[in-house]
Order: sequence, then structure tokens, then C-alpha cells
Amino acid sequence: MLTEHAGKITSIVGRQLEVKTVVVHDLNKQRSVDLTGVKVSNDPFEIINDSEIQMMVEVMGTIDQAKDYIEAALRAGKHVVTANKDLIALHGPSLVALAREKGCDLFYEASVAGGIPILRTIVNSFAADRIVEVKGIVNGTTNFIMTQMNQNGLDYATALAQAQEKGFAEADPTNDVEGIDAAYKMVILTQFAFGMDIKLADIYVEGISKVHAADIAEAKRLGYQIKLLGRAKLIDGSIDVTVAPVLVPQTQPLANVANENNAVFVTGAAVGETMFYGPGAGELPTANSVLSDIITVSKNINMGTTGTRFNEYQTPIQKATDDQVVDPYYLALEVADRPGQMLKLTEIMTENQASFNLLTQTELPDQRARIMLVTHEMSRQQLKRIKVALQEVADLEIKAAYKVLN
Amino acid sequence: MLTEHAGKITSIVGRQLEVKTVVVHDLNKQRSVDLTGVKVSNDPFEIINDSEIQMMVEVMGTIDQAKDYIEAALRAGKHVVTANKDLIALHGPSLVALAREKGCDLFYEASVAGGIPILRTIVNSFAADRIVEVKGIVNGTTNFIMTQMNQNGLDYATALAQAQEKGFAEADPTNDVEGIDAAYKMVILTQFAFGMDIKLADIYVEGISKVHAADIAEAKRLGYQIKLLGRAKLIDGSIDVTVAPVLVPQTQPLANVANENNAVFVTGAAVGETMFYGPGAGELPTANSVLSDIITVSKNINMGTTGTRFNEYQTPIQKATDDQVVDPYYLALEVADRPGQMLKLTEIMTENQASFNLLTQTELPDQRARIMLVTHEMSRQQLKRIKVALQEVADLEIKAAYKVLN
Repeated sequence: MLTEHAGKITSIVGRQLEVKTVVVHDLNKQRSVDLTGVKVSNDPFEIINDSEIQMMVEVMGTIDQAKDYIEAALRAGKHVVTANKDLIALHGPSLVALAREKGCDLFYEASVAGGIPILRTIVNSFAADRIVEVKGIVNGTTNFIMTQMNQNGLDYATALAQAQEKGFAEADPTNDVEGIDAAYKMVILTQFAFGMDIKLADIYVEGISKVHAADIAEAKRLGYQIKLLGRAKLIDGSIDVTVAPVLVPQTQPLANVANENNAVFVTGAAVGETMFYGPGAGELPTANSVLSDIITVSKNINMGTTGTRFNEYQTPIQKATDDQVVDPYYLALEVADRPGQMLKLTEIMTENQASFNLLTQTELPDQRARIMLVTHEMSRQQLKRIKVALQEVADLEIKAAYKVLN
Repeated sequence: MLTEHAGKITSIVGRQLEVKTVVVHDLNKQRSVDLTGVKVSNDPFEIINDSEIQMMVEVMGTIDQAKDYIEAALRAGKHVVTANKDLIALHGPSLVALAREKGCDLFYEASVAGGIPILRTIVNSFAADRIVEVKGIVNGTTNFIMTQMNQNGLDYATALAQAQEKGFAEADPTNDVEGIDAAYKMVILTQFAFGMDIKLADIYVEGISKVHAADIAEAKRLGYQIKLLGRAKLIDGSIDVTVAPVLVPQTQPLANVANENNAVFVTGAAVGETMFYGPGAGELPTANSVLSDIITVSKNINMGTTGTRFNEYQTPIQKATDDQVVDPYYLALEVADRPGQMLKLTEIMTENQASFNLLTQTELPDQRARIMLVTHEMSRQQLKRIKVALQEVADLEIKAAYKVLN
């Protein structure tokens, strides 16, 4: 892309960008890119110690090693562009502080939602607004799986196998399907949208591996699709961040984000509801985001304005408590199909001041039944109490408790 | 918003922004904003001639008058932020040139798609990519009308009346319903996406006032919604820009952009398909876009980097010819219901090397019938020839010829 669009880039930046050195792990591997005139090395210090080089781009992945190299590069006064989501989610604040101390730029647009320029958009276009909620489909693997389950009625295992076959899921899919990858992205999105440096441990994370075809079917009947959604929500100045399966209304723009695509839905107090949709990963979309960073750094070098933070908005963390976070919920229970079970359920709901507006019961083999209900809004504290109480009922198992988007 | 988010804005800009003078048309009108400490005048030169003022924001509308004041402000060395789409679409290039000559910033994010930060996103995030197509729902009034027709089966007149009642359409809706407002926005989008200064006259514009409920119903049966779409498409380095009703597949993200919302779908050679969705108008969304410009200007003043163009990408115009622009089409014809009419139709299609993959005929009163068909891809030249030939057939009337999105 740097070669193909050299003319356009030079005209925008006002300088010609030159790739001097490329560091690779395996010098003998065949590359599909023409590297004529470029020094190819397997030693990162060929970049870090080269005083001619002004900018380093890190797309090697890993956490500790990449961190070492990036820190060394910043210490050597080099601007850094990285696509490393895990690193930024885990060590963002210290790297950002080091960059500022050294007067260097540090950009990482590609770290969240690959081809969607969401970080820069939040910085540039929501500066004057107060963001009240960011929710998004930020993991392509799980969205592909959920799309197969929602649209083609596949069960989880079959949909996962298909995702693996197509190369959308890894052999060990844990990081994706258990919501960890999405949670990393929510750490970064929360930092940008709310100026708060939250940690992975601050996020309630639940993956999709327990979503049942029966839940998908019931949600569909009610006009919803189940999606793995990250949500960061401001409640009275406090933040609540979750990654979990959520029932999304069919008419909500997020419901139609299919397959491996990503989308981030940003609600601003002034601007209202906006959505940014695009490919969440892939070689070229990621390259485009990395290049938008490279161009920004280059413009800053040109104008002598390097050293400002990617996101200048900083505010102390304040976490919402369980009684502040209020949502309607979809609950699925498996019970022994005998009189009195429904009474116990309604008793527990009533004791916790919760109510529901919809309940269906379907018979299962072996004298068992599946009860699915949608509650009115209740706090996460109420939900927790209800779950504890339900767990004490004999022959009753909680199969799902998912938020429902209004 | 400036007052409410003063802390955040000051921390981002690094300076405090102060509103010194507000110019209004009617000094006696009650305002809902607290203007204590602000000079209120009805003379624009109270701003233009005030050497203390660094930036002027124009949100008064009109073309010639606003142009005069903006030019005077730029000549006086003031940076200008405007939301004036008509003005920028008609006189953008000369104003941009004047701003650059004077070393001033001129930004107009709010001029296209109100609350969606689409111009800045194209500038910042597609700089390294080659945009191949921009298509969008960029007029809220017509999208509200089309949504009512698509979802609730209303006819055009009833849907328009409803839009007028809700304040989405003006008493004289011509500018909106005939596609002129959308065309202005496509002029600006084309400039940003392709670097080409096209004129309104370069755009093929067709409004929605002739879209018939029968077309909506047939499109729905085939899995499409009819939307008023602006499209700027690059074909072999040449540009083709249209504003017209288009059949959009239900699964395309644009189909689910409902009511008065806007969305711009940008296809990059590298990044692939992305979409930016949000409110197309409204007091606060527009204010947010205006403020993002104000903040950008302020940062530039702070860093001494004013005077660069909003969009640096410039390339000579090259217009695509009718034989280069290829699409499938939906055609609706009204014919006398007698033998031989269908033969004439297929003869004309065949003579022009066109073919169709779907045809339905429904009977109308008075021995007439409505024929609706979807063609394979053909050039606009072929379509024009077919239309000319069809017009010569007795008792045959062309009711619609709309592009179909693949």
C-alpha cells in the first residue's frame, strides 16, 4: 500500500515515506512483498539503534517481547505505531506515559476493530460531546459463529467447527469464544470513550460457548438475535463494562452486522446514536489502520507537533455498583416438569421485586421442561440474588441469563 | 455544549474557548441559550472587523450572503467553521483557495450527514487507501418517507404528509424529495473521497416523488427495499455520481437505516466495506460536528499549524461515460394488456444485448397491465437506448428504471 499509493500519501504528508529496515522472525521465509532496497534483518535493534529511523511499526504480536522492543524504541526517541491489542490493553497507560515523556507519538488504531477507524473517530469527533455508552461487536470469530447459529440454526459446536474450517477461529478458540479478546478491546474503547484506564479484571466477561440453539430460537421468536456484545456504559458518572451474549432487537443496526464483521455503536449525549461498521480483521484492513497512524505520525513530524497522547481525555476511574446497572434480562431454566416449580420461580421473583413480561415453557425428554422468560428491568444485584435463590431450588438449573437491549 | 463540556474541551485543546460575539437576525427573539457576557449584535461586521476574534462560526444558512461574510472573515484572517452545505457544494473550491491563501482554516464537517463525522473520517482514515465507491443515505427527509413506504405500505403522498406533520419535510419539499439536497452532499463527499471537484450538473439526479407503492411491494417480494441513494463510483479512474431511488438488498447494512437517519457506506480497495451511521440532522448532532471543527481549529491555532486544507487530496476530474457505468436495473412498465406487448419488450431487450432474470406481470383495471422486471447488468448507454425504443411502442409507458445493488 505504501508503494501503490505513494503519490497520494506524499501529497497528503508533504514528505516521502521510506521503509529502511524490516525485521522478521525467519529470514528464509518467502515474502509476497517486494523488499528490494530494504534492509531485512532478524534483529529488532537494527531498527532501535539506527539513528536515521524516525518511526517503528510493530506488528509482530506477543506481549512481553513487543513491550520490550517498543519501550526501547521510545527510549531511543522513535515514534511507534502498533496493532498490538493485548499489549495496549494490558500495558497501555505505562507505554503512553513513556511516549509522552520522550516526546514521541504512540498510535494503535488497528488494535481495535481492525479496519474501523473507531479510536481516531472518538478522539476527533466526540471531543465536545459526552459519550454515554459504547457497545459493539468487536470480535469477528464469535460474530461469525453467532451468525451461523442465528441465521442457519446451527448449534454451537457445528458453528465453531465451521469457523475453524474457514480460518476464522483458531484450533484453541478459548480467547475468542470466552470473550477475552473482546474484553481487551473494551479496555481500550473505554479508555477512549470515557477517559478511564480500566483493567481486564474490572470487566464482567462471559463467552458464547454455553449459548444453546434453544435460546437462539426463542430469541428469534421474540424478535431478537443473540450477539456477543461488549458494552461500556456510563451510569451517574460511573462506568460499567461487560462482554456477554446479549439479545439484540432485529431492528437495531447491530443485529444486521453479520459474519466476521465488526461494528461499534456509540451513543453521545448530544449526537445521539451512531454506528461504525467494517471488517474487524484481515491483512489489508489492518494495514489501512496502521497506515493511517503512520500518516498521522508523519504529519506530526512535519509540523513539529509530535508527543501528544493519542487520546488526551483522562478522568479517574469510578466503577458502577451492581445496584446501579439496570437491564431487562432473558432467563432460561431447566426444571423437573412437575407442579409447584413455576410457583417457586414466581415466588423468588416477587421476593426480589422483579417481574417478567413473557414466559414460555417447552417440554423436554425425561419429564423435564425448559422455561424461558424475559424480565422487566432489574439491577444486576437483583439478578444475582435471584440466581442464588434459584440455585437452592431442587431440580432447577439456570441455563442462561442474558441482557436484553431495549 | 461549549459551557457544559468546558472542562473536557479545555483539557483537549489546551486553551479556554471564549464566545465573544453572537450575530443574530432578530435581536428581540427569545433565545433558549444563556448569553450572559456575550455581545449580541445583528451586524456580522461586529465579528469580521473585531481583531480580537480568531474564529467565526457560520450557521445562518443562505448562499450569497453567507459567502460574502465568510470571504470577508477569511480576508480579515479569521478561521471559519460552517455547516452550510449548499454554499460549500456550490462555492467550496474558491472558498478553500481563499482560506489557504490567507493561512486560515476552513472546516465544514456538519455540512454532510449532520452527526456523522464522515468528512474527517475520510481524510484521516482513508488517506492510505484508494476509495472505490461511496454510497449513502444522505437525506433524512426522503429516508423517512421511504421507510414509511417500505415498512408501513404507505403511498408517497401519505408518507410525505406524515413527514411534513412530523417536521421532517418542509411545506415545499422539492429540494429534498427531488434529490437536490442529497446531490449537494454528494458533491462534497466526492471531493473528499476522490479528490475531484465535481459540479451539481455532473450528477444524474432523480427524486422519489414517482416511486409507486407497487414498486415498493415488488421490490419487497424480491428481497429489496427502495432507498434514495447517492452513489459516487470510480470506474477505471473515472467518476460517476448519481442520486436516485435504488433497490437495496434487505441484508445490506444500508437497508436497515430507518427513518430520518443517515448512513454513508465507503468501500476502500484495501479496507473493504465500511459504514458510518448516525443522525443526519438535528440541533445537537449538528452542534457536535461544528464543535469538532472548532476544536480542530483551536488545536491548530495552539500548535501553529493552521492553513492546511480540510481535504488535501486533489486530483483532476474525469467523468465516466454512459457505457462505463454498469448495473442491474429494475424496470416497471405499464402496457395495454394484449398479445404481442411482451414480444416487443423482449425484442427491444435483445436488440440492445440486454437480458433479464426475473419478470412479473400484474393486471390493472381497464385492460392494462404492469410489467416489472430485473435485468442482468447493463450499461447506462444500453438502458438509455432501451428507454428510447420502449417509448416508441404504442400503449407502453415506462414507470420506473432503478438501479439494483448487488
